[in-house]
Amino acid sequence: MTDVAVVGASMTEFGRREAWIRELLAEAGAACLESATVPPDAVDHLYVANMASGEFEGQTGISNALASDLGVVPAYTQRVDQTSASGGAGIYAAWQSVASGVSELTLLVGGEKMTHRTTGESTDVIASLTHPVEYKHGVTLPSFAGLTARRYLERFDAPRESLARVAVKNHANGVLNPHAQFQEEIDVETAMESPMVADPLRLYDFCPVTDGAAALLFCPADRAAEYADDYAVITGVAGATDTHVVHERVEPTRMDAVADAGRDALHMAGRDPDDIGVAELHDMFTILEFLQMEALGFAPEGEAWRAVEAGRTDRDGELPVNTSGGLKSKGHPLGATGVAQGHEIYRQVTDTAGERTVGADVGLACNVGGFGNCVTVAVMEGR
Amino acid sequence: MTDVAVVGASMTEFGRREAWIRELLAEAGAACLESATVPPDAVDHLYVANMASGEFEGQTGISNALASDLGVVPAYTQRVDQTSASGGAGIYAAWQSVASGVSELTLLVGGEKMTHRTTGESTDVIASLTHPVEYKHGVTLPSFAGLTARRYLERFDAPRESLARVAVKNHANGVLNPHAQFQEEIDVETAMESPMVADPLRLYDFCPVTDGAAALLFCPADRAAEYADDYAVITGVAGATDTHVVHERVEPTRMDAVADAGRDALHMAGRDPDDIGVAELHDMFTILEFLQMEALGFAPEGEAWRAVEAGRTDRDGELPVNTSGGLKSKGHPLGATGVAQGHEIYRQVTDTAGERTVGADVGLACNVGGFGNCVTVAVMEGR
Repeated sequence: MTDVAVVGASMTEFGRREAWIRELLAEAGAACLESATVPPDAVDHLYVANMASGEFEGQTGISNALASDLGVVPAYTQRVDQTSASGGAGIYAAWQSVASGVSELTLLVGGEKMTHRTTGESTDVIASLTHPVEYKHGVTLPSFAGLTARRYLERFDAPRESLARVAVKNHANGVLNPHAQFQEEIDVETAMESPMVADPLRLYDFCPVTDGAAALLFCPADRAAEYADDYAVITGVAGATDTHVVHERVEPTRMDAVADAGRDALHMAGRDPDDIGVAELHDMFTILEFLQMEALGFAPEGEAWRAVEAGRTDRDGELPVNTSGGLKSKGHPLGATGVAQGHEIYRQVTDTAGERTVGADVGLACNVGGFGNCVTVAVMEGR
Repeated sequence: MTDVAVVGASMTEFGRREAWIRELLAEAGAACLESATVPPDAVDHLYVANMASGEFEGQTGISNALASDLGVVPAYTQRVDQTSASGGAGIYAAWQSVASGVSELTLLVGGEKMTHRTTGESTDVIASLTHPVEYKHGVTLPSFAGLTARRYLERFDAPRESLARVAVKNHANGVLNPHAQFQEEIDVETAMESPMVADPLRLYDFCPVTDGAAALLFCPADRAAEYADDYAVITGVAGATDTHVVHERVEPTRMDAVADAGRDALHMAGRDPDDIGVAELHDMFTILEFLQMEALGFAPEGEAWRAVEAGRTDRDGELPVNTSGGLKSKGHPLGATGVAQGHEIYRQVTDTAGERTVGADVGLACNVGGFGNCVTVAVMEGR
């Protein structure tokens, strides 16, 4: 197995963009190649992480389109779809292409263009990933989030405010991220008084609908120095699934696929949860940040809310979580998200995250598809 | 790089099926596991090759759905999309998962459900892979095929009947394939008199619209004997792209991405075109069989039509092509096709293709997306 390095990274501005998916992907891809001063024709594999360009824009074949737009033809191209975990699946696919020995330079670009659709339309496209039985009864992902949040608060006697604190923390981080959709602090009161969406969750418990793209460049670790003085090595990466039907799970507040993927990725890296110095978690809904912290071993079951309330996941805490602003503040263009998480961890472990830099050597990204239906976890370490 | 074996294979009946994509995928996947007497929970990676379940059926997240349907949770799952080359891209992804060392048993299932839509709707979904400029002017893939066929016939002074002979040969092969959509011989006259679609191509120059699925099971070659007495080893696999805009290509009768992927796959296998004893080519349109034969080095440029006319690609010829019936007769459920090509080559090199068996030790599958926009080639050898 060839060791794999990340030697370049980029992301576009996230938010409401006057650009189509092809333009967003090209913007991120070109910037990423530039970040490592790599000519396009050096790329031999190009992966595009995207959930639904066909449904959102009537445009398919986007990995081929991007190969032409970037001038990387005849590099092999493929689209990776794992719903909202497409970006993390893209990291896994790109890692495999280098680790298996067939690629010397792989570019991964993830993106989604969504804001030209109404929030209802976007929610409906996303809900098409659920089981038809659940879908037919109107149980979209926000509904699952509401039901699970209620269960968590009751089960662990956690205050409703603790969820709001996740949003407050991630908004505070987003202020320092020039690419974030929202660069604006909020307070607990604002979050608690925002409109109800899925009881007990309110507007500020949800990530926004976002356009954007992000990119990462991969090569064998023994060639990384050709491209960058400081780079990251992917020391662990793994994926796992949970049941497609959410109501078949024994305990909805336990994210088994996160636990499985996290355990495998940490094992591959030879690391414990305590070794992780910075983490990007998939806070599509605030409640998910608690559940992932617990499944990954960053907090005992039922106690993540205490860690957040105590500030242990703030930028100056023991384990800063979602320094990028997270999905909540940075935004969540489905296919881009996992790649943007990788971008943040790369920046953190190479100490190039600007004011957000927390000085961590080892970082972890956890990308979740559906309601924990599928998960990828990557561990990156600075070199 | 771990050597990768194929130890199981299956395909559903192709044609008009009263089943949705999830059912088709589950049918093929379960049969494939059964073919190697493997319990579902032994699978650690599951790839689903599919172009457009969202567009055709409003169902996404199908790799998760399949993991649950087959009982392979918590195996990592991902959907692979490379338009009509999704199946070949799936073979490449599955190969990488084993070759990189992270998988001990990977299941690949490719499928598409299309016949509930009209031919026009299906053509329109497929055309969404083309460049918007071409798409806007109504240049669908059948139009490209017509234009290219005209150019080929004129450039190489080939008779119109030579194209019909491709259809006649592949229909004759399909008669022996119990899973083929059409199990019926046709003659040159029938093909030549069928309705005009895209001058000079007529109805019998086109593959049908098809529902179906196929599956392959991969493991490290040194564990293959645990699952099967006779198995195949993937000795070469590669992919390549061409320009997204077809009219930017210098010579449309040359399929550069086929040439690139073929050269790389043969090089990896340490083989020459002459070593190949059986091939599955992507005859979505009859003209494509000529172009691929030439790009892969099976015939000099402009002379594939002579090889077909002389019977050299018949079942009893030097290089039998499309013994399965090809896309023309077997059918073309987009995401299933590349996997079904792999299924046929596996059957041929393990001498288990029933009456179609030609006794070849080395086979090649070439899967094409778009109009040669992206291509994968795999070389398999019997053990």
